[in-house]
Amino acid sequence: MAVSMETFAQWKNTTLEKLDQSRKGSVDERARHVVCLLNSQERFFTTSSCSGRIVLMDGPPEGGVVQKKDCRWLFISHDPCRSEDLVSALSRSSGEAVLKFEAFVLHVQCHRLEDAQLLHSVAVNSGFRNSGLTVSRSGKIIMAVRSTHGLEVPLSHGGKLLVGAEYVHFLTQKANQKMEENFRRIHRSVRCPLPGRLKNSTASETLLRFFQILQAALTAESPDLQRAEDPAVTPGEQENQAAVYRRRRKRQQSQTHAERDEEDSCSLDDCLDLFS
Amino acid sequence: MAVSMETFAQWKNTTLEKLDQSRKGSVDERARHVVCLLNSQERFFTTSSCSGRIVLMDGPPEGGVVQKKDCRWLFISHDPCRSEDLVSALSRSSGEAVLKFEAFVLHVQCHRLEDAQLLHSVAVNSGFRNSGLTVSRSGKIIMAVRSTHGLEVPLSHGGKLLVGAEYVHFLTQKANQKMEENFRRIHRSVRCPLPGRLKNSTASETLLRFFQILQAALTAESPDLQRAEDPAVTPGEQENQAAVYRRRRKRQQSQTHAERDEEDSCSLDDCLDLFS
Repeated sequence: MAVSMETFAQWKNTTLEKLDQSRKGSVDERARHVVCLLNSQERFFTTSSCSGRIVLMDGPPEGGVVQKKDCRWLFISHDPCRSEDLVSALSRSSGEAVLKFEAFVLHVQCHRLEDAQLLHSVAVNSGFRNSGLTVSRSGKIIMAVRSTHGLEVPLSHGGKLLVGAEYVHFLTQKANQKMEENFRRIHRSVRCPLPGRLKNSTASETLLRFFQILQAALTAESPDLQRAEDPAVTPGEQENQAAVYRRRRKRQQSQTHAERDEEDSCSLDDCLDLFS
Repeated sequence: MAVSMETFAQWKNTTLEKLDQSRKGSVDERARHVVCLLNSQERFFTTSSCSGRIVLMDGPPEGGVVQKKDCRWLFISHDPCRSEDLVSALSRSSGEAVLKFEAFVLHVQCHRLEDAQLLHSVAVNSGFRNSGLTVSRSGKIIMAVRSTHGLEVPLSHGGKLLVGAEYVHFLTQKANQKMEENFRRIHRSVRCPLPGRLKNSTASETLLRFFQILQAALTAESPDLQRAEDPAVTPGEQENQAAVYRRRRKRQQSQTHAERDEEDSCSLDDCLDLFS
């Protein structure tokens, strides 16, 4: 069902040639290495990315449907921020201000379904548990990398601040912690387990990160996913990739209400115990 | 790449025969009609569902990796709740209490990729924009229905409440509003547009809901998705289904950082302007 590689390459060229229409006008520095790694492979190209951000939005006073044009940006930061800046931004609220931490988001178009499956495994194993595929009837396959790691705190009503500066300071710390953990998930190397140790790894050993796992997976695909142009796969690398899939299968089994209870809600600050 | 219908039917029987392992021990009443509709079709079965809930979790004091076993449930409600009950539950916090609103979640195993695509279109068009597919190498195709509609508010630190009762009252109202909107998205009929009117519908006319769109889509699939066992499709129904796909294609085009800005962040309380 995959389109030809020629068609895919045309889509890729068209997309990457477009000017970045984002508010920032460029790929976020902290996501650049992931974006570059993916775009260097002919079977992938990225269509959007955001490394993560802390935002303060001012919505209109209650009473009707929220329209995009009625919202105002009071504050935005792609790095950890200072509570003084948030307090200052909050003073400009005239409606319903909401503080949000939004984690890393990445959309990747993939040539074949197998390519998207591989990327999905990598994303879920890196802690981006709300990742998923979109498959269009025209053959476009998009993998969206999404986290469950968020923060969404309403702070004002009718322009009136509902909390004290001390609480805003506390929230700033929380948002900054989530930002740092988000960055670690994207690219930092923290006790990355050796191939073959994944199955019995402890919670602290599961600090697997998207970039490392992606690098490993792209160069060590299991036999039935491997392409002619890929480098030779060593037995150790095969085990590494097989472990990625084992974990994924484990996660797919018997998803229940109870599982949501345990995994989504208990992981208040962190999902580091994802595979423990 | 789909497994045989016999294999799929076996998986379905095995899954549906299992006792519901959820905390509640049953399918949530408010999601039951959606679950029943899907399970009545041979090409689908649900593997988990939660109609939406307001929860108050108490995490351990800061300083380490959060482990599931260290978290406590202080409060849970699948219906709108009273702020007095939240204040009372908060008084039992001894660590880091966090109030969350978690929207409708549904996992559906689908026979063919086309079945999952149809369901994905329905979900996104109903406002569940973080929905996505998971495809395993063994041929299991899961569609996860997920919302962007949340709330996640840290409220205590080391057991000490950081906000006043008035703010908890305000948050309760916000959580209850989100719960009501969530229920409307799942199943209520609010000015559901007539077939053929989708394209030019206004914001208020886009209050399309999962159940209605699902019902319409299942009985009115477009020609290339239609199955022998499906009822005959009228031209009006075809237009309805075609509109579902048009909207989805529109959403898939040029996903950029700017789009996240406009869609995710501006829709503070609501995503009712999703297609406007």
